[in-house]
Amino acid sequence: MQSFELLSQKFALHFEKPHFPAEPASLYLPNEYFLKLGGKRVRPVLCLMGNELFDDIREDAWDVAAAVELFHNFTLIHDDIMDKAPLRRGMETVHTKYGENTALLAGDVMLVKAYDYINRIDGSYLHSILQLFNQTARQVCEGQQWDMDFEKREMVKLDEYLRMIELKTSVLLAASLKMGAILGGAGERNQNLLYEFGRKLGIAFQVQDDYLDAFGDPQKFGKQVGGDILANKKTFLLIHAMESASAHQQKELSNLLTGNEAGKIENVLKIFRDCKVDEWALQLKNKYLDEAFAHLEDIAVLSKRKQPLKELAQFLVQREY
Amino acid sequence: MQSFELLSQKFALHFEKPHFPAEPASLYLPNEYFLKLGGKRVRPVLCLMGNELFDDIREDAWDVAAAVELFHNFTLIHDDIMDKAPLRRGMETVHTKYGENTALLAGDVMLVKAYDYINRIDGSYLHSILQLFNQTARQVCEGQQWDMDFEKREMVKLDEYLRMIELKTSVLLAASLKMGAILGGAGERNQNLLYEFGRKLGIAFQVQDDYLDAFGDPQKFGKQVGGDILANKKTFLLIHAMESASAHQQKELSNLLTGNEAGKIENVLKIFRDCKVDEWALQLKNKYLDEAFAHLEDIAVLSKRKQPLKELAQFLVQREY
Repeated sequence: MQSFELLSQKFALHFEKPHFPAEPASLYLPNEYFLKLGGKRVRPVLCLMGNELFDDIREDAWDVAAAVELFHNFTLIHDDIMDKAPLRRGMETVHTKYGENTALLAGDVMLVKAYDYINRIDGSYLHSILQLFNQTARQVCEGQQWDMDFEKREMVKLDEYLRMIELKTSVLLAASLKMGAILGGAGERNQNLLYEFGRKLGIAFQVQDDYLDAFGDPQKFGKQVGGDILANKKTFLLIHAMESASAHQQKELSNLLTGNEAGKIENVLKIFRDCKVDEWALQLKNKYLDEAFAHLEDIAVLSKRKQPLKELAQFLVQREY
Repeated sequence: MQSFELLSQKFALHFEKPHFPAEPASLYLPNEYFLKLGGKRVRPVLCLMGNELFDDIREDAWDVAAAVELFHNFTLIHDDIMDKAPLRRGMETVHTKYGENTALLAGDVMLVKAYDYINRIDGSYLHSILQLFNQTARQVCEGQQWDMDFEKREMVKLDEYLRMIELKTSVLLAASLKMGAILGGAGERNQNLLYEFGRKLGIAFQVQDDYLDAFGDPQKFGKQVGGDILANKKTFLLIHAMESASAHQQKELSNLLTGNEAGKIENVLKIFRDCKVDEWALQLKNKYLDEAFAHLEDIAVLSKRKQPLKELAQFLVQREY
């Protein structure tokens, strides 16, 4: 059983190579540039961990891990275009550096390359892995579309937001784990339990993310606390506040959102606290985390094999930054 | 053996159904809208014809045909964004009607759906079909990138243009045929001959396309003759003219290209004729057509099985519209 840190290092070594031909450089340099921006490589490592939960890591699990990471980077390149984001990990996004047309095409070819890695796996697993990969890719696109739709809406219900987060974030974590499990020869019940573990963990992670943006320690958080509030982002916190606030608080909140006056963050945070949104969010996170752990518990392998996944899950949702 | 017309009708019936779920409608309606714009469906029918060249059409050949058509439509949606094209087949393009972000995402999910159809085929063929599909998808992206690069360049060499056309247009025709052949149980030699037939046919088709834009009969051509000249598009004709013209003619041509004065089309056409570009283009088309037919001839199946492909090829490159 290898820890997240160790597998993350090993994957980085595996992945650190050119993934594209030299020409046309105008298409492939942008891809290599973006992949070099790094990242925590959580998804590919989840794939490897899902594999090692059931058996020694197979050679083609590294290929599926690479496919998952390339897919994730494809979504980032295209999302950055849609969000008009100038920076990613402190560096220029692809469309900022190379233009929108090239970024569009670089994303496309990144997705195709992901399928190339998928096609390296053993034939007996190809159908089921490809099915899961396609389903997940479709869902992630749907999540992004809901996210864009919600931005234009006045209000979003909690269950709608939850479903969007699930599609946009959770299913890829869950599928990464499950693809590893499929390659590890896991039975269907174990595969699905692991998928549910990943899905719930992803939701807990997003609740945490929304929480930290509002209530994180500015010293540890690394980015501006209250960024979501300033941007009027519909988060777990804002949606719950709107649903649970008194009529008076709701009106105040609406007024704060329509304007951008000084003290907006503090005033919104005050309403959040008055409505006990912070406590609610921590409870919600723990609810999903507990459910995730219950699924992991149910997987029929020796408990010690689950240790690295437990540690990773704890780490992901207990970080303060 | 079924004719192109018959298979085209059958494919249309097969393909005329919703390919996407109902929700989110903001994502999937644009896809269904675009697919309803129609088109000749040349590529999927090539897949079916490639299959029927060797055996009765298999059930999963229809799935690969659908995949090829969805892939083609994905490239059209994204190309239209890059080209800022307002219309396609006389109707609004996806980004014009629904916005660029949705068009980007609609294209992405169209590509994923193509892979979904690929995954329906028999497991024994999945590796090789997926390999060819991925390779072709990568090449088409490369072709589009070269095309955009060439637009920014002063001049392009004939062999560069040829390679770009091959990537952007020919390889998908060739691969459609070959995927059908693979499913038909064709041997590798026959598969490759059919691929080469498609590749050369695609080039001949593009030469014809460039020729008609300049020398087509305005009554039959359907669009404005000389459109490529007005847009300074680097075509087979312009590139050959620049390479074969006298120094004096070259200068005149350059002057005509930099300006947009009245009579530009006529004056460029006069230089084309003086350089015998029209004759050269017809010869070039016939050269590729002859080579294509020679490959078809070499395929080891009964001659009568090849009849529909021969007729289609003749039709594609002898049209005057």
